[in-house]
Amino acid sequence: MAFLVIFAAMTKDTQIFGIRAIIEAIEAGKTLDKVFLQKGLRGDLFNQLEQLVRKEGINASYVPVEKLNRLTRKNHQGAVAQIAPIDFYDLENLVMKVMESGETPLFLLLDQISDVRNFGAVIRTAECTGVHGIIIQKKGGAPVGGDTVKTSAGAIFNVPICKVDHIKDAVFYMQASGIKVVAATEKTDALIYDVSLKDPLAIVMGSEGKGVNPSVLKAVDEKAKLPMLGEIASLNVSVACGAFLYEVTRQRL
Amino acid sequence: MAFLVIFAAMTKDTQIFGIRAIIEAIEAGKTLDKVFLQKGLRGDLFNQLEQLVRKEGINASYVPVEKLNRLTRKNHQGAVAQIAPIDFYDLENLVMKVMESGETPLFLLLDQISDVRNFGAVIRTAECTGVHGIIIQKKGGAPVGGDTVKTSAGAIFNVPICKVDHIKDAVFYMQASGIKVVAATEKTDALIYDVSLKDPLAIVMGSEGKGVNPSVLKAVDEKAKLPMLGEIASLNVSVACGAFLYEVTRQRL
Repeated sequence: MAFLVIFAAMTKDTQIFGIRAIIEAIEAGKTLDKVFLQKGLRGDLFNQLEQLVRKEGINASYVPVEKLNRLTRKNHQGAVAQIAPIDFYDLENLVMKVMESGETPLFLLLDQISDVRNFGAVIRTAECTGVHGIIIQKKGGAPVGGDTVKTSAGAIFNVPICKVDHIKDAVFYMQASGIKVVAATEKTDALIYDVSLKDPLAIVMGSEGKGVNPSVLKAVDEKAKLPMLGEIASLNVSVACGAFLYEVTRQRL
Repeated sequence: MAFLVIFAAMTKDTQIFGIRAIIEAIEAGKTLDKVFLQKGLRGDLFNQLEQLVRKEGINASYVPVEKLNRLTRKNHQGAVAQIAPIDFYDLENLVMKVMESGETPLFLLLDQISDVRNFGAVIRTAECTGVHGIIIQKKGGAPVGGDTVKTSAGAIFNVPICKVDHIKDAVFYMQASGIKVVAATEKTDALIYDVSLKDPLAIVMGSEGKGVNPSVLKAVDEKAKLPMLGEIASLNVSVACGAFLYEVTRQRL
């Protein structure tokens, strides 16, 4: 399978280490997925990197030096960056391209899904249900790394992914483009089966623990839930996402 | 949450070690989920345990002593058993009970789902969609252990589980009881949306790698598939199971 070859080739080159190397990568426009910086480190070059990371809105974590030593055996000088295995799409370009294609748009907005296996399974499902693009937040979600490639079974190479500062930005942009935004949430009486999903559509799925952010819920056009016939009333997020996306497929067939 | 307390209390007591202790547990009717036996070990008592394990059809693995030492620090004498955190149901009793309840039966037959996270997510979904019982094979599937309790979010305590020697046995028993058996498989032209799921029903889901066993496929009443709109054409098994079970829910609402 082609994607396995790509994956194997990629894992070697998905890290950059050293402060100057990371600065150069950012300035050269490389898509960094996450930067790990050594806690308590000082210095002009390190400050320069910190400013650049902040300016570009790159996902960064301050970690003990031991964590960096585990990430690489090379001389990291207090900074290790992970390169994203894919190029991210620009939201506006993607929405325009889908609009022009004549297909009925279907987007998936992920409000900080944090588990990489869930994230991978969601991407895989999105690919199987013809989703035109997945929109994630720059911060707070699972990293887009080698594990995501693996758990998505390579589907990540077939579904465009966009990063936004906040999911709310994407909600507003969808609405301004004439796309209805429906949130998957138990905080409603409307069953998914009673909501029309045939029009241009974006579905918002929330995080494992907290569901869809309340401020996002306020912004969406409609809310919908899956029926819960048991007592636990809590599905795995990738399963719930699959049930929603297949209901879209069913209605549109 | 109540199930977390149960889970914490259980993890302490889910292991039995020592040959005689395991023999006694089996003879006392304890439900063992799996027995680990030391490779190459000999002795009368050990032989007695081996025979008992075979006679009762208990899932057993022969492993190097290092593996046993990792499982417990106690003096295991070459044998460690895992107790199932739940009591398994008898298939015939369960089917009869469901028939008598007046509800429309819905069973889930799992043909060797091997990943414990998938297994847990499937149990969770089954609980949320009112499945009356999950039937698994004695051998070849994910163990019913503490991890399953955890990944099922406690749902395992709410959904009866039956173990059978072979899934085909359960297929025949369902059919003899007037329950239609539908396999989830891509080896058909019938979409799930075109199959009636309102009657008494058992759904068969296959393993992650191989899908439903060909001999089981031959025995079922109908086959159904989910539409695949992308190129990967492969869903996570717990996601596929969720899409099937929610289609049942939708049709029955």
